[in-house]
Order: sequence, then C-alpha cells, then structure tokens
Amino acid sequence: MSLWNQARRSARLNPSIIREILKVTEKPGVLSMAGGLPSPDSFPVEAMRQACAKVLAESPREALQYSASEGFGPLRDWVAHKMAAMGHRVSADQVLITTGSQQGLDLVGKVMVDAGAPVAVETPTYLGALQAFNPYEPIYTSLASDADGPLPDAIAALPHDAPGTRFAYLLPNFQNPTGRVMPEARRAALVKAAQAARVPLVEDNPYGDLWFDAEPPAPIAARWPEGTIYLGSFSKVLAPGFRLGYVVAPTELYPKLLQAKQAADLHTPGFNQRVVYEVIRDGFLDQHVPTIRERYRRQRDAMAAGLAEHLPEGSEWREPQGGMFFWVRLPEGCDAMALLPQAVEAGIAYVPGAAFYAHAADPRTLRLSFVTLAPADIADGVATLGRVLREHIEATAEIAP
Amino acid sequence: MSLWNQARRSARLNPSIIREILKVTEKPGVLSMAGGLPSPDSFPVEAMRQACAKVLAESPREALQYSASEGFGPLRDWVAHKMAAMGHRVSADQVLITTGSQQGLDLVGKVMVDAGAPVAVETPTYLGALQAFNPYEPIYTSLASDADGPLPDAIAALPHDAPGTRFAYLLPNFQNPTGRVMPEARRAALVKAAQAARVPLVEDNPYGDLWFDAEPPAPIAARWPEGTIYLGSFSKVLAPGFRLGYVVAPTELYPKLLQAKQAADLHTPGFNQRVVYEVIRDGFLDQHVPTIRERYRRQRDAMAAGLAEHLPEGSEWREPQGGMFFWVRLPEGCDAMALLPQAVEAGIAYVPGAAFYAHAADPRTLRLSFVTLAPADIADGVATLGRVLREHIEATAEIAP
Repeated sequence: MSLWNQARRSARLNPSIIREILKVTEKPGVLSMAGGLPSPDSFPVEAMRQACAKVLAESPREALQYSASEGFGPLRDWVAHKMAAMGHRVSADQVLITTGSQQGLDLVGKVMVDAGAPVAVETPTYLGALQAFNPYEPIYTSLASDADGPLPDAIAALPHDAPGTRFAYLLPNFQNPTGRVMPEARRAALVKAAQAARVPLVEDNPYGDLWFDAEPPAPIAARWPEGTIYLGSFSKVLAPGFRLGYVVAPTELYPKLLQAKQAADLHTPGFNQRVVYEVIRDGFLDQHVPTIRERYRRQRDAMAAGLAEHLPEGSEWREPQGGMFFWVRLPEGCDAMALLPQAVEAGIAYVPGAAFYAHAADPRTLRLSFVTLAPADIADGVATLGRVLREHIEATAEIAP
Repeated sequence: MSLWNQARRSARLNPSIIREILKVTEKPGVLSMAGGLPSPDSFPVEAMRQACAKVLAESPREALQYSASEGFGPLRDWVAHKMAAMGHRVSADQVLITTGSQQGLDLVGKVMVDAGAPVAVETPTYLGALQAFNPYEPIYTSLASDADGPLPDAIAALPHDAPGTRFAYLLPNFQNPTGRVMPEARRAALVKAAQAARVPLVEDNPYGDLWFDAEPPAPIAARWPEGTIYLGSFSKVLAPGFRLGYVVAPTELYPKLLQAKQAADLHTPGFNQRVVYEVIRDGFLDQHVPTIRERYRRQRDAMAAGLAEHLPEGSEWREPQGGMFFWVRLPEGCDAMALLPQAVEAGIAYVPGAAFYAHAADPRTLRLSFVTLAPADIADGVATLGRVLREHIEATAEIAP
C-alpha cells in the first residue's frame, strides 16, 4: 500500500490533453493550430514596460506587499464600469480579481459543487472548465445544443432529468471550442428557462471582445443579475502571462467566493493588478483591442480560405464571427484523435474534439486555433491537414472491399 | 430556499480573522503588530525594476504568453539547487512553482484530503493552513507540543487515535505563530515516529532563511524524501506581492499536484517567475537576505526589550531566534480576544492566539509581529500593550471581592 493515501477526488485529476499535445508540438517545425495561444505580436510590450516602471517608481511598497483578497480597488472599479457599459450594472463590491479566469472556475467549483451534484454544460464545452470542476466530483449533464448554443428545452428539463443541478455553465460568445455565439433570442430564451427551472447560470466570457463584424449581444448576467456568476479575463485582450481574470458575483454569493479565494492563494499578485490597471486606465484597450480584432480577422480569413480549398468533401465547419477557433467535423470514417499522430508527423497539430465533451464525444470533430500562426503559416498548416486527411481517406478506400 | 445551493464544504469557508483585524488597523494611527507583513523597506525595488525591464526587453513573447504549469525551467532548477544546499537532494522535475505557498497548501489539501479524513497539525498551527485545508473537510488532530515542537509520541499515537491520518503538517523553522524552531534531535525523533506510524509529512518553510544567530537544522524532507512534501516561498526573502512559492514533492505525488495546479490556475504568472529568476540568478539573495536578517534582528531586540519592560507580571514569552513573531501568554484572567477592542482603541493591534488552534484554544495567547514596524514604533506599541493589560488587570482586581 502506498504511504500516500490520496483523496478520492484525486482520481478525477488527469493530465490535460491540450498540454500533452502542446509538449509534442514544441518540436521544431510543427505548425500548431492546437493551443489557444494569443498571438505574441499582439502583446502590448511597450505599454507593459512603461507601466511596470511607473508602478515600481510610484507605489513599490504597496505593489510588492500583501494586499486585499478582493483585488486592487481601482481595477475592481474599472471592471464594474466595463460591466455597466455592457448593460450589467454591478457594484465594484461584487468584483473579485482572480489569478486568471481559470481560478474563477475553480472557486465556483469549490463553493458550489458537492460530490455527486449535477452540473450542466454545453455540448461540447470548454475543456478547462471540466478540469476545474472535476476535482469537486460533479455529475455532468450535457445540454443538447445547436448552432446557436444550448437548447432552452434542455435547461427546462433539468429539474426532472437532473434535480438539484447546481448551475449551468455557458460560454455565450465565440465559444471554446465551437466558435459559436448565442444570438439575442437564444439568450433571452435560456434565461427564461433557467429562471423557471431555478437553475443558476455561470457565464464565462473570455472572448467577447474579440468580435470581427458585430459586437455580441449583452451578457446573460445582465438579464438575470441575481442568478448569474460572470467570469472575465485580461488574457485575450492584453496577455495571458500576467494571469489576470475576474469574477462578478451576486451579492449573496460573493463572501463565500472571496473566502475560497483567500484559502486558495491569499490574493492575486498585486504588482500585476497595478501594472494592468496602469496600462488600461486611460482607454488603452479602446485603441488596442481593435488591432487584435483586425489581426485575428485576417487570420480567420486565411483559415477559412484554406479549409475551403483543402479539406476533403464531407468536412463541415462554420466560419466563426469572432474568438479564436474553427470547429471542424471531418468526413465519416475519420477519427480526429486517431489521426493526430499522423498529423504531427506531417508537421501540424490540432486538438481532437473528443477532449471537449463531458459525455459521448463526436470522434469526427477537431478544434483549430487561428490566432497563434501568421496567415501564411495557417495556409500551409491547413493544406497539410487536408493532405493528411485525403491520404487517410484514400488509404481507407483502398483497403475497403 | 436560496436559488444558490452551495456545496457542503462552503460552510467550512469563513472570513479570515487576520484579514478582518487588518481592516480595522487600516485606520490611521494604529500601530499594527497583527499582520505578518514583511517590512517594505526590505523590498529590493531597484533589482525588481531592472529585472522587469530586462525580461520585457529580452523575452517579452515568452514572459507574456501562457506557459508550463510546472513553472519556469530555470527557476525550478534554482529551487532544486537551493534544496540540495540544504541537504535535500531533489530533481528539478520534483519542483512545482505555485502562486504563493498558500496555493501549495490548497493543492496539498485538494490531492490528499477527503471529507472526514484525519489531518494532524501542531498546537498551535498556522492559521492560513487551516483555512486552506478546511474546504476539504478534514478532521484535525492537534498534536501535543512543547517548546521544541510537536511531541514524537503524539505522532506515534496517530495510528491508534486517528487511523488513516493523511499527513502531519509541520513548520519546523520559526513557526507561525509561536516562533519556535525544532532542534535537530526533535526533527530526527519526529521523522522516526512518522516513518514507524506511516504518517506522511507536509513541511512548510516560509521563514527558514530568516535566522538571526544560527542557521536552522536541515529540513525534515531531507531526512525522509519519499515521505515529505516541502513548501517554500519567495514572499519573505523578496516580496509577497509577486506571489511566488513552490512545492517540492515526492515523484509519486508530483503528477497529481501538477494536475491540481493546472485545474486551479493553469500556471503561475510567467512574467513574475522570470523577473524573480532574473533577480536571484546571480546570487542576489546571498547579499540581500543578510540585510533582512539584520533588520529583523534589531526589530526583534526592540520588541524583546519592550516586552521585558512593559508586560505585567505573569506574562510569558520566549525570544524567537528568527522569523517574524513573538508568541505571548498573558497573565491568568486575560483573554486576548476580549481585550483586542480596547487595544485597537488605544492604538495598537495584535492577533489573538485563539485563531491558531484547530481545537481548544488558549485564550491567554496572542501573536505579535515585529517585522512591519520600525524599532521606535515597536517600543511605543509594546508600551501601549503593557498599559492596556495593566489597566485591565487593575480594573478586574478592583471589582473582585
């Protein structure tokens, strides 16, 4: 018997398939469309440099000291103003700064999920959320979904199918992995169904600012403030390496999330909070985010053109209107997980869609990120993907009777 | 019934008494000996400034991007070398960089503690560890302790008294809150007892570098590498506001702690890891830490002198040989928690010792930090504490028959 008698939940901790793939793709020459790594060309290095210098010149004693678990006051105010601009009027007292929005997911799991409690997720859903919730041992309900998001009827059925559902986890904007955005009408219908079913909502919005043509509808939290926890992030509009996200929570729930935050890491680095606040306080993002949108739109276009040119007949995808990902369904008989070694051998990488399902996965699906590679590399990468798929299909046809 | 049906563990989340006290002490004029806030005069601001500039000039794309959950490679190497210098030979593969060592405690709880599982702690013990473990719903065993730390017999009794104890949590160096250090012989006896009882150990060492006269004995982990998880921190030797700590774990346990880390916040800010590595890579701490020791030694001396001069007869304390805290036991009839409002009214603050007990607290105890205030303020603060205590004792005597 091992000396170390681990917790039961430890069995629910597993290696991240994305991180394992990322390790493989570190070998030189692999064009990776796997990880959702923002383009480093979009990082505002000079603004960060100035802000670091300013914080260390003007408030080093505060920035380098222990600080409040709630987060840096001016940054919490900034978040509250941003929420208000999106139609969600909240007090800064409802804003909790987190160490990336991944931590927000962990805190939600910690405060809300008992072992065996039902949690509803989209089909497919964000892999990182499953990883954050898993240690708290929920039983997932995979909500039936279409191209506009989960079906309101699936929410309405929860009191019968999964009584005591703790919350439904939703990504309304340019969802990871499908890229889909919930239209106004779907949001309204989902909120109505959730209110009737008394199922609270957790709304995750890391990609909402990365729209290409039209701003997405107002957040779900604005429609049901007392029934929705909202998660936001600076990773996609500034840089992920600072690990800054936030939770906006109903007043009833805030104290417990705060206490869970204290227990988890006392507070998010105060230096990082002050630097990011210095960068964004005077409207920097109003100029900066449009440049990211324009960059990603060109990369999206390059991938759309490549997919149309190179993917074999029977492949399906929809052009995302924002965010970072294409979601592709391969022709019948293709298994994205089984094909990955051949793809990496040929010099490209993607994430098999299976990783994003709480239950029965569709093995034909895969996720392609268009934000890390430049357009020319995207064109090459998609051409290679097409070649790998066609070779596989031809080989399969040859051995068929 | 509330819409939000919280997890059962949520009942174990509570406001931090220290943070509540810190809020009170923010009012101007209060001399706080409550929080364990390192002296901001010890923060190496210029070195941090240069390192920030260097990282943003030389590796901005890497520092601002997502990065490995394990941590920044060169920083992990540095930690492994530091461990080896203390007699604990480990591979860098056993080092996990965490968002402060508080996160290390959370990850240990997540991986090791089931609801109702026994966890053994010192009497008294670090409040933040109780807060980190509490959400995982352990049942604590308070190990009988003396001035040298927990008694080996108390460990030996665990298989009988608390079968299945997941681990014993130990702070061998300048313990928070008591300031005590475990001598060589006690460490050896504790390890022997733990091995015989098959009770793994979690060794927390945030203060080990802050010795005044003699370096403490080798860590417990060096004596039982496969049976000990070791936690370290940069908060006390550089600055807490960067939130950098580390876990050194047996190979058997490392993957689960890593997966728990991924689920918790993906990774610790890469920027912070690179900046701290730049600061320390060429031996900066060899010059810097002695200046902190010298500073804190003077402050310790000021507090020792003040306590001897001002505390009423019947008060007890031992002069700490390192770290940040005095642990004081007041004369019979004094309740540190009950006296706190009067103390704050008089312009000082401390932490009542009751906060640091997993079970029956000794109400006469309190913790005084000597690291935040300058020596003159320490003298004033301790004089005020003495006055409050003497007034209380006189008032009590007057109303006695």
